[in-house]
Amino acid sequence: MSTIKLGLIGAGRIGRLHAENLVHYVPGAELLWVSDVIEEVAKETAARLEIPYWTTDYREVFDDPKVEAVLICTSTDTHAQIIQAAAAAGKHIFCEKPLALDLVEIEKVLQAVQKAGVLLQVGFHRRFDPHFRRLKELLEAGEIGKPWLLKITSYDPAPPPISYVKVSGGIFLDMTIHDFDMARFLLGDVEEVYAAGAVLVDPEIGKAGDVDTTIVTLKFKSGALGVITNCRKATYGHDQRIEILGEKGGLFAENPLPHATRMANESGYRTPPLHYFFVERYREAYVAEMKAFVEAVRERKEPPVTGLDGKIPVVMGYAAKRSFLERRPVRLSEIDPSLA
Amino acid sequence: MSTIKLGLIGAGRIGRLHAENLVHYVPGAELLWVSDVIEEVAKETAARLEIPYWTTDYREVFDDPKVEAVLICTSTDTHAQIIQAAAAAGKHIFCEKPLALDLVEIEKVLQAVQKAGVLLQVGFHRRFDPHFRRLKELLEAGEIGKPWLLKITSYDPAPPPISYVKVSGGIFLDMTIHDFDMARFLLGDVEEVYAAGAVLVDPEIGKAGDVDTTIVTLKFKSGALGVITNCRKATYGHDQRIEILGEKGGLFAENPLPHATRMANESGYRTPPLHYFFVERYREAYVAEMKAFVEAVRERKEPPVTGLDGKIPVVMGYAAKRSFLERRPVRLSEIDPSLA
Amino acid sequence: MSTIKLGLIGAGRIGRLHAENLVHYVPGAELLWVSDVIEEVAKETAARLEIPYWTTDYREVFDDPKVEAVLICTSTDTHAQIIQAAAAAGKHIFCEKPLALDLVEIEKVLQAVQKAGVLLQVGFHRRFDPHFRRLKELLEAGEIGKPWLLKITSYDPAPPPISYVKVSGGIFLDMTIHDFDMARFLLGDVEEVYAAGAVLVDPEIGKAGDVDTTIVTLKFKSGALGVITNCRKATYGHDQRIEILGEKGGLFAENPLPHATRMANESGYRTPPLHYFFVERYREAYVAEMKAFVEAVRERKEPPVTGLDGKIPVVMGYAAKRSFLERRPVRLSEIDPSLA
Amino acid sequence: MSTIKLGLIGAGRIGRLHAENLVHYVPGAELLWVSDVIEEVAKETAARLEIPYWTTDYREVFDDPKVEAVLICTSTDTHAQIIQAAAAAGKHIFCEKPLALDLVEIEKVLQAVQKAGVLLQVGFHRRFDPHFRRLKELLEAGEIGKPWLLKITSYDPAPPPISYVKVSGGIFLDMTIHDFDMARFLLGDVEEVYAAGAVLVDPEIGKAGDVDTTIVTLKFKSGALGVITNCRKATYGHDQRIEILGEKGGLFAENPLPHATRMANESGYRTPPLHYFFVERYREAYVAEMKAFVEAVRERKEPPVTGLDGKIPVVMGYAAKRSFLERRPVRLSEIDPSLA
Repeated sequence: MSTIKLGLIGAGRIGRLHAENLVHYVPGAELLWVSDVIEEVAKETAARLEIPYWTTDYREVFDDPKVEAVLICTSTDTHAQIIQAAAAAGKHIFCEKPLALDLVEIEKVLQAVQKAGVLLQVGFHRRFDPHFRRLKELLEAGEIGKPWLLKITSYDPAPPPISYVKVSGGIFLDMTIHDFDMARFLLGDVEEVYAAGAVLVDPEIGKAGDVDTTIVTLKFKSGALGVITNCRKATYGHDQRIEILGEKGGLFAENPLPHATRMANESGYRTPPLHYFFVERYREAYVAEMKAFVEAVRERKEPPVTGLDGKIPVVMGYAAKRSFLERRPVRLSEIDPSLA
Repeated sequence: MSTIKLGLIGAGRIGRLHAENLVHYVPGAELLWVSDVIEEVAKETAARLEIPYWTTDYREVFDDPKVEAVLICTSTDTHAQIIQAAAAAGKHIFCEKPLALDLVEIEKVLQAVQKAGVLLQVGFHRRFDPHFRRLKELLEAGEIGKPWLLKITSYDPAPPPISYVKVSGGIFLDMTIHDFDMARFLLGDVEEVYAAGAVLVDPEIGKAGDVDTTIVTLKFKSGALGVITNCRKATYGHDQRIEILGEKGGLFAENPLPHATRMANESGYRTPPLHYFFVERYREAYVAEMKAFVEAVRERKEPPVTGLDGKIPVVMGYAAKRSFLERRPVRLSEIDPSLA
Repeated sequence: MSTIKLGLIGAGRIGRLHAENLVHYVPGAELLWVSDVIEEVAKETAARLEIPYWTTDYREVFDDPKVEAVLICTSTDTHAQIIQAAAAAGKHIFCEKPLALDLVEIEKVLQAVQKAGVLLQVGFHRRFDPHFRRLKELLEAGEIGKPWLLKITSYDPAPPPISYVKVSGGIFLDMTIHDFDMARFLLGDVEEVYAAGAVLVDPEIGKAGDVDTTIVTLKFKSGALGVITNCRKATYGHDQRIEILGEKGGLFAENPLPHATRMANESGYRTPPLHYFFVERYREAYVAEMKAFVEAVRERKEPPVTGLDGKIPVVMGYAAKRSFLERRPVRLSEIDPSLA
Repeated sequence: MSTIKLGLIGAGRIGRLHAENLVHYVPGAELLWVSDVIEEVAKETAARLEIPYWTTDYREVFDDPKVEAVLICTSTDTHAQIIQAAAAAGKHIFCEKPLALDLVEIEKVLQAVQKAGVLLQVGFHRRFDPHFRRLKELLEAGEIGKPWLLKITSYDPAPPPISYVKVSGGIFLDMTIHDFDMARFLLGDVEEVYAAGAVLVDPEIGKAGDVDTTIVTLKFKSGALGVITNCRKATYGHDQRIEILGEKGGLFAENPLPHATRMANESGYRTPPLHYFFVERYREAYVAEMKAFVEAVRERKEPPVTGLDGKIPVVMGYAAKRSFLERRPVRLSEIDPSLA
């Protein structure tokens, strides 16, 4: 098995998470470079994970011919530019979601990647969650026959800072985007969305021009229906469940519990709250995501989450946003005619 | 405790169910009369349950001064007329849902009842389910603070006959109506609905002009959001669950299992399917419903499900129907301006 | 269906429970008499349940030729004498457990019953619990093949008064006796027991000469093993579970929950405590027990819990007591050579 | 943080498992040597895990002054000799359970270790399972007050080969030993055991002089009671559960499920079988065990499972064996007077 050499661009929280997973849990991968605009961060990450080289200028990474692939984990507004530079340098690319908030930029990115002939995997980590994968396996094995109705529950334990809310693109592009991807992963493409939303968690979110609690109805091309409920706050943890009703039965992915321990007394039985951070909840998913990327690079095969998979949830996010603002169902083809 | 004497009008499946519950499980109630248009049914029911009098003409029941209250369990199209006759005769009334499919008729009924000064309870039995009541108690006790998001899952085990579908008024008025009532019971009045629907279970349902799988988004007057998912078929039984997310936590009413028994082997663990018929699932609810009606009559107090509670879900059904047909959210006040 | 006429002897807590079940839930049964040594109790019970006759002298019940069967729910020390009187009067008999605490008395009782040719059912209500019956059905259907290991958990919510402990015959004859019967019901006859015990709940129980927490190991004639754990106190309710491991898998009867409702917040998920009183936990079992007795009387067939079924758990109780005192395993045949 | 350099003696299944965990998951540890009597195994393990040195003679490992600690994962009959050699060489020691099957040998080992002043940790991995640790935390936090009754369920998915059964020392020393350790871990020292056993899974096990299904009753020094049920076969996986009943409530460690996925159809709900191999079930425990050993070595502090913790479960195994053979309860002090 050949060892794939990689460079990390952007060593923030998610970048460091991927770096650790690569170093500890992905056999056949070697992280050669870490780049971050903050020198201290780059240096410290390199030292802690025994990464040979560090830099504050990501172009150095692209100039190293030993580097076959890069992980782009910088802020969203820089994704498009760095992807294009990476593609131009012939590096295979893993990029965190979203590719960009601007659909024209995304299109440019996809074309640059295609032209360069490099591989691109987008960071929708939930596809690698073992519970959701098992759901998909059971679905594809025909256990419930044709799927009719998909229900995704996806609550965060607490809202992000208002400063983040303001630049996030709004809840549909920041939070629901993961569920849009999951909906496509499980039941295929969506034709139309209808979005309702409200400010219930925190009025500051409303003042920032966003909502914090939403219900999005989906019509799939297959004729099936779906609904995604999101909320920025659930005191009991990161609530992530999926149900599918089909002609032969139902499939349910429940929340995995941190501890299989119950306590009982006069007040009843108590089980622990859910994992609080997505990092804990999706620990295994993040490792599997990196393994899948390294494997795709090694075998020069299409990654399990393609550039198009990165783009369509953004289109869905815009469709949901418009639906919410105009109070009507919106077809994806209104946002991107190529999806008609 | 005085004994309340009652008459049953309509001894079909639901009428006989109420009769049995009254006879066996409601202390302080005596069923004096059973009336059914089919002589054999009236006779047989009277004999089996030791009900003193039977008739094929419900007016005989109204003429008996010993009768204080009647249960109207005839077909929907006869409700309005019989209620008005009962009110004119000064009898207190329990009437199965819906009061009528015509809102003008409902209005007439409510006025007749008010004018006569009799009590009217409408048959939304789910309000009496101990699991849902417990949910409401916990909600009202402030356990989760202000409620933000209500989710009702309500699937039937199998679709009704197509002949029934044709006269049912459509899924929103026949099936969702129970969930509309439950939504009001738990979170109060609704301002606007948006309904999506599809024919997925059986194309015959589509040919009959109806859909079989629906998602209805609700906006409550309080600002909270809600979503009801319905399907005419779930192979694993009568799936009836409710979730409420609120500022301090979540409440979940799961399906009660018919047996607390699990089996394990190489294929995994198995628990039994859900109750199949609503009669079994809501056995306790139906008894509690009758007890509540008899108690209201005895104490001359407002029944727990009033005439207005009977009317509003019908308005919501029409709003959902219009929403589905016109592909837009519809405010209840569009259907009934008095609800503005 | 002929109506079976019955008389109740002893209208204490359990007697009144059976009376109510007979009156409300057992079609084809009529309770003609209630007898209790306390006049007020007999009178009040008769009035409340509309039982035609009451008395303080149970012989009046036996003298009424209309009475076909009697329920003996008096204190344990009177069982033997009353059963023999009932048998002599040709009445079929339901008697609460235990038949007697003295094995010679039990033998006399069984002979009197046999000689009189009347039916005798002993009050082991747990056999009628729907969850445990379901377990037995699955076992008998061969779902787990040959059973190897039975585990019965049986805790009371709180210890009885010390005055009761003193006359109860001790925990093995008062509490474990139900589990001994359940063990026989599920896996057949037992050859040997070993009992360990401790005073952990309340030192007063120790002063009264009893223990409050026990572990009893069983060897079945089939070769299978079993273990019963008992405790006089579990703060979270009446904990009653059974597990069977067999060659093809496992069967588990869990505690049925009073409400299918969960609550979640920062502290985790909470489900309600268990049913507190055996009356609530075994509500359905008590009704089914009465139905089975009335059916046995009507059809003149052997009741589902025979006199021998009433005797053997008492033998097991004595074997456990001796095992505990002599600190060694004890075969049932040491207590009753007829069981060799 | 200093890096601890280690050598592995014995690269069989469990040895390789520890090696992989050290290499991948334990920061601050470096595996310098691998030794195995089979050259190919030593070589291959070194190559795969990039371990610098390999040998077929473990004395080479002891001769390397850079090695601070060794993992002894050879066959049980060699443990005593190798531990003594390691102690003589001044190496800290992690040794798989059991230290030896001969109590005199164990005593020698413990003395050698004490004399040499090296640290010794014994391989009872279950103490590091996060679910059981959580149980202990809740217990120690006083959540259920004083513990009264401990119940350990511990079934293997399938029996080992008969050849292994013959040299294993019997089920009490091979399988129950883990549960004996767990009992001590949770409720402290045990005074007396009573063991029942049967051959139910496979008659070949009986021919090999062993039993395959057992129930062991424990009396703790604290006065509490306990029971361990073992079976060599459970078709649904490695069933490992613990319950503790105490004065204020109950604690329950359930089996963690491999997938939080349920499926429902006409036959009911299905969840996956349990983890089959102990390697999967205790994956996290094995990593934590290595981390704890490395930390103890680094900080020169007593390891969380001491030599005495390694010895006492062997004493308990012999006591259970004698109890089973002599059909009577046996005090630990009968086996080892020092435990009186």
